[in-house]
Amino acid sequence: MITVTEAAQMLLSQANITLLCHSRPDGDTTGSAIGLARGLTQLGKNVRVRCADPFPPTIARLIGVPTQCEPPGGPEPFVVAVDVADHKLLGALAEEYAGRIDLCIDHHPSNKLFAKATCLAPHAAAAAQLVAELLAAMNVTLTAEIATPIYVALATDSGCFRFASTTAATLRAAADMLEAGVVTEEINRELFETKTPGRVALECAVLQSIEYYCDGHCAMITIPTALTAQCGVAKSELDGIAGLSRQIEGVWAGVTVWEEGELCRVSVRTTSQADASAICAAFEGGGHMRAGGCTIRGSMAEVKKLLAMVIEKHLGERQ
Amino acid sequence: MITVTEAAQMLLSQANITLLCHSRPDGDTTGSAIGLARGLTQLGKNVRVRCADPFPPTIARLIGVPTQCEPPGGPEPFVVAVDVADHKLLGALAEEYAGRIDLCIDHHPSNKLFAKATCLAPHAAAAAQLVAELLAAMNVTLTAEIATPIYVALATDSGCFRFASTTAATLRAAADMLEAGVVTEEINRELFETKTPGRVALECAVLQSIEYYCDGHCAMITIPTALTAQCGVAKSELDGIAGLSRQIEGVWAGVTVWEEGELCRVSVRTTSQADASAICAAFEGGGHMRAGGCTIRGSMAEVKKLLAMVIEKHLGERQ
Repeated sequence: MITVTEAAQMLLSQANITLLCHSRPDGDTTGSAIGLARGLTQLGKNVRVRCADPFPPTIARLIGVPTQCEPPGGPEPFVVAVDVADHKLLGALAEEYAGRIDLCIDHHPSNKLFAKATCLAPHAAAAAQLVAELLAAMNVTLTAEIATPIYVALATDSGCFRFASTTAATLRAAADMLEAGVVTEEINRELFETKTPGRVALECAVLQSIEYYCDGHCAMITIPTALTAQCGVAKSELDGIAGLSRQIEGVWAGVTVWEEGELCRVSVRTTSQADASAICAAFEGGGHMRAGGCTIRGSMAEVKKLLAMVIEKHLGERQ
Repeated sequence: MITVTEAAQMLLSQANITLLCHSRPDGDTTGSAIGLARGLTQLGKNVRVRCADPFPPTIARLIGVPTQCEPPGGPEPFVVAVDVADHKLLGALAEEYAGRIDLCIDHHPSNKLFAKATCLAPHAAAAAQLVAELLAAMNVTLTAEIATPIYVALATDSGCFRFASTTAATLRAAADMLEAGVVTEEINRELFETKTPGRVALECAVLQSIEYYCDGHCAMITIPTALTAQCGVAKSELDGIAGLSRQIEGVWAGVTVWEEGELCRVSVRTTSQADASAICAAFEGGGHMRAGGCTIRGSMAEVKKLLAMVIEKHLGERQ
């Protein structure tokens, strides 16, 4: 494990740098890598950013096209993974870069320490928080072009500063980006207030399926196989659906049951009054205190009945 | 107009202070007044907080009971209005305090300068941003008890830092509050992620009434008189309903039509591609660029037809 100053020194000593994002990229890996790439480019480095999968279109549009400076021939570039907790998460790039990651810049406490050196900020709400520190340590002058991807990364990973992971340092890093010229109105509207018509239709259908158990402390929503197709929503639009049922006042355990053939995939989200991982463990699933998942064989009706029994017992034991 | 330093000196020179909130209090007037009251109490002042209407229950619970130190007999207390743009907004307290407001601490550019002295921060996202500066200028030690109402005020007025009014200073003020010990998880969940079952039912019904016009750039939702009662929602739960239709991707003008007897009350919300005040002006209404309102006589079907024509023309002219 190395410090921010050490990581900055490492990067400053290199001329050719490749930054790698995790596969199925989100706002944090994308924004962190692009922001860092632009900062390093300002310092005269040759930088390219690679990712196994395309960047999400909205994110890519909001932060502009990624820096795609191909490194010149000659020296093997220095390879940096950004927001990557595990080598496997490089996806289709994992094999090409096996044993070749020089530095990993990350904020996941679960980081597998797969890189030759790792700079980890386990309490940061986003990898971008660490990238902001790195840019400062390298004396990069923050411009709106550099600050915008960093802001997008901070905002997406912290739920626009709503999530419990948001600390004073997260807010101060965002403040620095605003001072560098980020215009947040469009970014925040597109990321946090915009839904496709299909998503709206899906949410309505899903919320109308809601059933309450345990005196209203458990809410269950069900998503039949055909529903997403009926509403015309893509997989990329399903983020956050599992959180809808927990939003309801008085609900301690919000359950979402996705029908998948003869199985049901179950997502559980809880408030501090219930333990999602304990509920899912009853079905050989797992997770954290507030978010867990499991797979249960059976029809949706059978699965709901089983879940309701387990959750009733769980909530009873905790009171 | 006076500076923060001057306002701080004024407050420091007083022993008995009454803080007034605006009527129909929101998170900002409540949190700002309670935070300031607790800070002034720390400095040994006798402070009481008054408001024409009760504080919203969730806000009151999250920040604790207001300081209700009755001022002792003798000197007439120094009266400070917090987040009050106009004397009229004191509601039922307006008459009692006519001509008696010594200081107004506010962030509304439209402030009527009705107080003997006014400390105004027209670019602040919340009055609480100014209160935070005042507390610092008075050397109040931030405790979690003082910082929590200030955080609640900052977060509510800035849409949890999503609104365009959020500046670097807003985020830094919030960071200071977190460092003073505010635990944001429950606050943010209750304020920004919790809906009553009735509100969820209403949103579903409303979103299912959605109709698109102008190639999808205008979305209209209609709310029949009986619907809110059917869903069992109180008036206090209707905040933000008018913003639902603008959330849809591609929508530049989101229109909400509330049926009220023989009239329809219309709310218009726009993105930068349309001007809500211009649309509402066609019906003798008004507002700002992004939010406007008007009242139109006629059935919901007639009103929608009229609105669609005006908006079609408006969007056409702007392209």
